[in-house]
Amino acid sequence: MSPDNRPIGVFDSGMGGLTVLAELVRLLPGESFIYLGDTARVPYGSRSPRTIQRYSREVAGYLMQSGIKMLVIACNTASAHAKQELTESLPLPVIGVIEPGVNALLARTRNRRVGVIGTRSTIKSSAYENQIRRLNPSVSVFSKACPLFVPLVEEGWLDKKITSLVVQEYLSELVREEVDTIVLGCTHYPLLKKAIYGEFPLLQLVDSSVETAAEVKRELEKEKISSSGSPGSPPRIFLTDLTEQMRQLEKLFFGMPFQSVEEISIGEGNIQ
Amino acid sequence: MSPDNRPIGVFDSGMGGLTVLAELVRLLPGESFIYLGDTARVPYGSRSPRTIQRYSREVAGYLMQSGIKMLVIACNTASAHAKQELTESLPLPVIGVIEPGVNALLARTRNRRVGVIGTRSTIKSSAYENQIRRLNPSVSVFSKACPLFVPLVEEGWLDKKITSLVVQEYLSELVREEVDTIVLGCTHYPLLKKAIYGEFPLLQLVDSSVETAAEVKRELEKEKISSSGSPGSPPRIFLTDLTEQMRQLEKLFFGMPFQSVEEISIGEGNIQ
Repeated sequence: MSPDNRPIGVFDSGMGGLTVLAELVRLLPGESFIYLGDTARVPYGSRSPRTIQRYSREVAGYLMQSGIKMLVIACNTASAHAKQELTESLPLPVIGVIEPGVNALLARTRNRRVGVIGTRSTIKSSAYENQIRRLNPSVSVFSKACPLFVPLVEEGWLDKKITSLVVQEYLSELVREEVDTIVLGCTHYPLLKKAIYGEFPLLQLVDSSVETAAEVKRELEKEKISSSGSPGSPPRIFLTDLTEQMRQLEKLFFGMPFQSVEEISIGEGNIQ
Repeated sequence: MSPDNRPIGVFDSGMGGLTVLAELVRLLPGESFIYLGDTARVPYGSRSPRTIQRYSREVAGYLMQSGIKMLVIACNTASAHAKQELTESLPLPVIGVIEPGVNALLARTRNRRVGVIGTRSTIKSSAYENQIRRLNPSVSVFSKACPLFVPLVEEGWLDKKITSLVVQEYLSELVREEVDTIVLGCTHYPLLKKAIYGEFPLLQLVDSSVETAAEVKRELEKEKISSSGSPGSPPRIFLTDLTEQMRQLEKLFFGMPFQSVEEISIGEGNIQ
């Protein structure tokens, strides 16, 4: 089999998907990645499914022009609403964050009572719930939207008293339902793992970023499209809007500043 | 002078401007209003000035087609970045929320030490600070971005312990600087007045919604374009994206559900 050194496209509505990119780079150092954050239209979470689908099509179309070999939807909202359409319309493997998270959730629960937390839109889509029931209808699922978590993370308030109280406020009812495992259904939430374990040390947390990276590795091997194994080029980062705050978030989410970030226009921007 | 029964256009990036609309309807029951919330692209606060200007032009263009006699920018971010351009390009009076807030702030401070709170973008624009210095360079201004306030309000957590802690976290440094008056530089913040007074009872808070409505009344009289005085028609509400959450926010921000809401496309939507 000949190596396939084309890049892997990763997209998110904003900067949160960088937690997925960071896991991908860690697990697959021989691959090259192109990340597109649609920061001009973030957050997708508060938009209608139809709008999310249109935005996702536009973003995927942009990445396709760069000759990617696989598309990773590193965004729970877009995975919930647009993965099926993209899978059907694109001639390459499309990986979302929901299935890998659900697989890990079902593998780890002991009492078959599980929790799902995410943005309002992800929870309202029932995407996790539906996938869980599809795979194992006997599992009880308890879902909770946690809209304060994203701004808490973006503020960098990862270990404040406020954060503990918000964690308590959102997760107490899941814990009262005796869930033993919770999937973090939003790419920002892995940064709150410590705060959540601080309040609820017995919970098992499933980090979709880690699970998705593992799924990408399996899919590359299955499709025989892995790279040559020599170190890939550093990830190329495209954002549809650049602000000062985003330069801070890249360190928070990716662990280090990027070598370079390019600002691009998609959707309406292309036709003005 | 003959009455001018054309409607007044009010726009915001989302639902927060409804606090301004509510004050306008209360103060000017004889006027008709058209409200446009650009909910498909909310929040403007995290976008670049150039993007905010483009969005504001598109929204204003839509309202102009409805034959409005005055434009109220019920959005601090858009007032900060787009008011000057809209004032120069549109053939009607344009009122933003910043000048009315600053005038009230300067009228009420006793010790000439004032605070400005708002979204990251509003604070970064220095729009309030610049306007304050223009009118009175001897006043000391202390600014603070409070990104958690909007999601707290949208969650309806107006009098929780968490809210008190977030208020303390954000406002303590302004209080240490001995400011005596703070302008609420975001249309969501009036709903936090009680929580802020609870922590800091001696502060004076300037509510831009109230001040802007008063300014609109003065401008209508000055320009001699007031309506006939008979009750105006109920406000027409246009949103660029409709979700379930928005139906809850209209009660929170406007005090009652709307008779009807129309979903419209602007910007990219028109040319697809």
